[in-house]
This record gives sequence, structure tokens and C-alpha cells, in this order.
Amino acid sequence: MAKFNARAIVFDMYGTVVDVGAVSEACRAIAPDPVTFNSQWRAKQLEYSFLRSAMGKYQDFWKVSEQALAFTIDRLGLTVDAAQRRQLMEAWLHPAPYPEVLAALPRLREGRPLAILSNGSPRMLQIGLTRAGLRSYFRWVLSADAVKIYKPSPRVYQLAPAALKVRRQEILFVSSNAFDVLGAKSFGFRVCWINRTGAPLDPLGPRPDMVVRSFEELATAVG
Amino acid sequence: MAKFNARAIVFDMYGTVVDVGAVSEACRAIAPDPVTFNSQWRAKQLEYSFLRSAMGKYQDFWKVSEQALAFTIDRLGLTVDAAQRRQLMEAWLHPAPYPEVLAALPRLREGRPLAILSNGSPRMLQIGLTRAGLRSYFRWVLSADAVKIYKPSPRVYQLAPAALKVRRQEILFVSSNAFDVLGAKSFGFRVCWINRTGAPLDPLGPRPDMVVRSFEELATAVG
Repeated sequence: MAKFNARAIVFDMYGTVVDVGAVSEACRAIAPDPVTFNSQWRAKQLEYSFLRSAMGKYQDFWKVSEQALAFTIDRLGLTVDAAQRRQLMEAWLHPAPYPEVLAALPRLREGRPLAILSNGSPRMLQIGLTRAGLRSYFRWVLSADAVKIYKPSPRVYQLAPAALKVRRQEILFVSSNAFDVLGAKSFGFRVCWINRTGAPLDPLGPRPDMVVRSFEELATAVG
Repeated sequence: MAKFNARAIVFDMYGTVVDVGAVSEACRAIAPDPVTFNSQWRAKQLEYSFLRSAMGKYQDFWKVSEQALAFTIDRLGLTVDAAQRRQLMEAWLHPAPYPEVLAALPRLREGRPLAILSNGSPRMLQIGLTRAGLRSYFRWVLSADAVKIYKPSPRVYQLAPAALKVRRQEILFVSSNAFDVLGAKSFGFRVCWINRTGAPLDPLGPRPDMVVRSFEELATAVG
């Protein structure tokens, strides 16, 4: 794979730096099948963010996540009290980084600044990164909340060149989420897809410039 | 349920007037589990329409459906030749109305005009309605293609008051799709949700004005 000299690297947060699947642990107490529960919750969370963007009815990602949780509980016919709901939501404030992330970040930061650009609310991002021990690696933590619409709207991606003062084509944007890879590439970033599961690529638009399986591979590729 | 005097009734097409599940028949030849195949295809079709709207990268619903089909085939690891792909897509041009629809439409049309407002491409809608024997019931067949963005964007819903020359709050909009119910209500239509499966309501916004289980119930409710 050809080396790519990025002037800055911007990362998606959920599913990319931290494992949303780890929220399943918190689901174990209330759902007989916590992995299914969590994946339905996550799918609904994304759907609601897309719908709110389309309708022009933004609410922040914490609220969206709460509403997605309420629907998932209803649909699966579960009984979950208020304390348990709070506990499930709190899991978003204790995100688990993917195992290789902490070792790769110092290498990635050599010679260029790093940033987060996420649909998460500012509070979710700040608390989550701090508790995960990652906050200090990122010079900027940018949230879609600043423009009140969600990725893959180009208005969200525009936050990065604006804050970093770097042209979009000199930024390497890194995400594991296929819709985010598409949106970022369509916006004009250089894009790396972290495809940990060997999923097929959505045939919706231009292909990412780079596909890796982990942060470790990414760190080697950008040199 | 209180009677509601609508000056016009506007219907969503897929999942509302015609059964997208009926496409499963066409999937039987290529997928060991045609219902799962079809529901994944349908979910991807909706996701792609949301994403294209968000990215400002509109392509028509036929193209979106083809891309969703390609991804679903890839993800499920199926082998499907070009002729079979065409056959699967052709199923969208032979949609099956829900069983009670044909008997209810003459009652619904008494005293007020009916229209279709769909994300489907104009060709899909015209051919599909004609083959299903439904075309003559609808004075207007409106497609999101006219504004190159998909529901739930308010720009799509605006097509109805503009074409019908009826104020939005005097239009009853009917859909089975929860995202469409939300988008239509958020736009300002009176809204009826046809909830055939007893699904819970997404807790995203204002509730529909009316919830029924079938076109027959709807015809009785609007009198």
C-alpha cells in the first residue's frame, strides 16, 4: 500500500475509536440476547440521526440515543425500569477503545495533529474520551452539534477543515462506518475505511483511498 | 374514532398501497431465506435513500434499489447472475396491492381526490400502479424525483399541496412507514398511520392523528 502523507488525521468516534459493541455488556442485565438488543439499538440510533437530519429536526445524540433505546425496549417487549435505562445510557459515557487503539495513537500523532469528528454530543465525546484515557491525543474534538445536523451531511465534515485550517484534500478521514466513509469521500477528504469485519463496501459512491483492518495497519500505512 | 373530513387523501406507495414483502416471491429462486433477503434489501434501499438525501447525491429510486440489491447479494455471499438481478428488479414493476386495497379505494375516492406521493421513480410508480389495476383511482402520482431528494425531506411533502392546490393541514396523508408518518406529521399534514403489524411508534415527534390496521378501517374512519 502506498504511503499517504496526511497533514492531519480526523477520526470518527463510535465504532471507529471505541467499540459500540461494548455497550452490550450493559445490556446483559436486561435483555436475554444482549448482542441483538444492542445492534437493534445502534441501528435505530443511526436511523433516527438520519431522519432528524432529513426532517430538519435536530436533537443531540444523547437524546437520539435515548429515543432509540425506548423504541428498542418497546419493540422487543422488555421490561426496563428508569434506573436500568439510565445505566444503559451511561454505558455511552464509558466507551471501550478497540484493543489496538491505545498503542497506535502515539505513532499516528507523530508529525501531524489528530482530531475527532463525531455525531456524538460534546458531553458524550469529552467524557468518553477522558474516561477512555484518549483525550490528550486529539487536538480538536468536533461534534455535529455545532451545526445541528448529522453526518453524512457535508456541513458536518466542513467542521474539520474550518477548525484545523487544513484543506479537505490534505486531511485523512478515518472511519469504520460505511455511511461515514461514503459521506467523507463524497465531501472531498482522503478517506481510510477501517473494515474490522471484512464487510462488503456499499456501492454508493467513490471508493475510499485506503482500507485497513486496524489502527495498527493504519499507523504503518501513514508512516 | 372521530370522523375526519379531508379535502384530499395522499398515499405513500411501497409498504402502504402495495406490499413490498411480495418481492420476496422473486427472491425465492436465489436466496435460501427469501424473507430475510428481501427485508435486508428493503432496509438497505431505505438507508441509501436517507444517505443520498443527506449527502446531496440524489439518484432515482430504481438506481438506489439496484445498489441496495447489489450490496445485499454481496453481504449474504450469494451468486446471482445478471438475468436474475433483472428479474429481482422487475418485481418492483409488478407490485402486489394489499388484499383490502382494491375494495377500499372506491369508497375513499367518494367526494375527494386521491393522490400518490412516493420516493419511487416516476416510471416505477406509473408502471406499478397500472399493472396493479390502481392507476385510475389516483388523480396525481407525485414522485420525489421532481425535487431530487427523498422523504422525509419536507421538500418532498411540499409537492402535494403544490400540485393539489390544497393547504397541507387539509390533506390527510396515509403511510405504513413509520419514518414517513413522522416526516409527514412534522411537515404539517394530518396523518394516518396504517399499522398492519401492531408495531410500536417511534418516539421521535408528534403522534399521527389516526392509527388504523387497514384501508378498510381507514375508509370507515374518513366516512
